Amino acid sequence: MQLLEDRIRRDGVVRDGNVLKVDSFLNHQMDVAFFQELAKEFYRLFRDSGVNKILTIEASGIGVACMTAQQFGCPLVFAKKNRTKNIAGDVWTSKVESFTHGRIYDIIVSKDFLGPQDRVLLIDDFLANGAALMGLIELVRQSGASLVGAGICIEKAFQPGGDLIRGMGVRVESLARIRSMSPDGGIQFC
Amino acid sequence: MQLLEDRIRRDGVVRDGNVLKVDSFLNHQMDVAFFQELAKEFYRLFRDSGVNKILTIEASGIGVACMTAQQFGCPLVFAKKNRTKNIAGDVWTSKVESFTHGRIYDIIVSKDFLGPQDRVLLIDDFLANGAALMGLIELVRQSGASLVGAGICIEKAFQPGGDLIRGMGVRVESLARIRSMSPDGGIQFC
Repeated sequence: MQLLEDRIRRDGVVRDGNVLKVDSFLNHQMDVAFFQELAKEFYRLFRDSGVNKILTIEASGIGVACMTAQQFGCPLVFAKKNRTKNIAGDVWTSKVESFTHGRIYDIIVSKDFLGPQDRVLLIDDFLANGAALMGLIELVRQSGASLVGAGICIEKAFQPGGDLIRGMGVRVESLARIRSMSPDGGIQFC
Repeated sequence: MQLLEDRIRRDGVVRDGNVLKVDSFLNHQMDVAFFQELAKEFYRLFRDSGVNKILTIEASGIGVACMTAQQFGCPLVFAKKNRTKNIAGDVWTSKVESFTHGRIYDIIVSKDFLGPQDRVLLIDDFLANGAALMGLIELVRQSGASLVGAGICIEKAFQPGGDLIRGMGVRVESLARIRSMSPDGGIQFC
């Protein structure tokens, strides 16, 4: 998607260690008007798939997922990283290894909000190693819901997550796919 | 706001320990179309205040804050509970005591996204003890931004947060204010 690639070129900052800082518009400060354009593109891609639920993971995916749910006219569910007092009862659960935070954590979704009647589109801001997306796919599998696919804002195509998940037969649509990047050499898209 | 009170009466569940479960529409599954109506009400209340930034805290406030930012046509910033590799540089920081999780944590916002040029509306899903809101107010104070007020979906008016923060001279607008609630006796609004 040209709009997103242009924005990444303009406002993204590449740091050592394969870090792409896009926190001025995507995952800390959120340009909500811009998100609406991304959401319209996800809707265009998946509108014929009968999506009736958006699933994401806290926290930085929630913004884009929210705008996408608005386009589809369906609710959003976000997987939580901690079990709080306020989620009683049964939950679907899986494990996610965070490379950013260097630890493994449980994610949960209440069984009340994900089940066989759901046709689920996963939404997230980044796809790199695929750990978060794998965790969400496992929740969908447990629940008996149908997985329509995954809509990703930025895929680091030089990391293994995209190939891994497409190799499982999951439709993954990434609005920007980065082939390579470096602090000196800038960003090349696929 | 009648629409929200009706929804809480219909779908909210009161549990022991002053817990109000509204996770079917507000803070786990998110009814985004409904959020849009809440956001319009926040816009009606604060539209003459020159708001140019929405500030919330991860994770459950992000959805309503996102829809509110859409109404105001301004960006949203969410305070993070963990410092990640991807936020380098200087940050504003304060401490929040979570009664839900039973611990104290740091929250941060990058100095790049909150400063003296900003007129900030705080948005959150709940106000009870006021800990999260106090943490956000402290970030605004540090940054030199102007605090326009706080828009809250559900205030537990029988807990001290609302009085505390209004007592500091902050304009707090809560769309539903609960006077009392119990598992047997239902929910009474102010």
